[in-house]
Amino acid sequence: MSDCIFCKIVEGTIPSFKVYEDDKVLAYLDINPFSPGHTLVIPKVHAANLLECGDEGLGTLIAAVRKVAAHLKTALPCDGFNILQNNGEAAGQTVRHIHFHIIPRYEGGGCEFAPHQGDMAELAALAERVRMA
Amino acid sequence: MSDCIFCKIVEGTIPSFKVYEDDKVLAYLDINPFSPGHTLVIPKVHAANLLECGDEGLGTLIAAVRKVAAHLKTALPCDGFNILQNNGEAAGQTVRHIHFHIIPRYEGGGCEFAPHQGDMAELAALAERVRMA
Repeated sequence: MSDCIFCKIVEGTIPSFKVYEDDKVLAYLDINPFSPGHTLVIPKVHAANLLECGDEGLGTLIAAVRKVAAHLKTALPCDGFNILQNNGEAAGQTVRHIHFHIIPRYEGGGCEFAPHQGDMAELAALAERVRMA
Repeated sequence: MSDCIFCKIVEGTIPSFKVYEDDKVLAYLDINPFSPGHTLVIPKVHAANLLECGDEGLGTLIAAVRKVAAHLKTALPCDGFNILQNNGEAAGQTVRHIHFHIIPRYEGGGCEFAPHQGDMAELAALAERVRMA
């Protein structure tokens, strides 16, 4: 969609800190992370939310979420992770292009599920370090 | 698994407020809901977390999550919903049997993602009202 910022990230007209990409899916660091390594996984084809995603696309997307999460768990590393996916403004969805959050969690570290302004240089270095081949 | 409370719920040796069931998946109300209508969706075959779930099982599970969420949105009704899935103690996973939370959200109502002790009679009535045919 022409006015969707995540479609623009897919097209490359808006830059992102890519972690993983294939022909169907893109994963990149959230620039306002809840925790270090917070990553978003999106389908390349636009769908607004969970209810608009077809079975096949959804299966591909969740398989990619697992693959990226498994990688991050060892590459960061982290001790656990939350998968979060918001649907509707009432649920805090701010971009109407379905996205799964992978929120890394660390022993002894809380996480309030609130965005923290990211440092662009740190994000670039982190993306470089954890990017999947 | 013999010591898994969610496997016991699948077997019926522990009761639950069922919302949906098919041959692969079970959905029931969380007895300590974050918000009214908070529902858990689990596979009948045990897997500890996202990383232990195979592609086919995971695809079936997320399709069921969408189906139940779509139903709840109109049956409750609610204005939006969060999908949450925790992996590892560091991420707040308390039962080591993969479960997707569907957390209904209501316009103007916050949600702190914290459990509230449920009233059993209210939960029973709610499950009766929203149970899928």
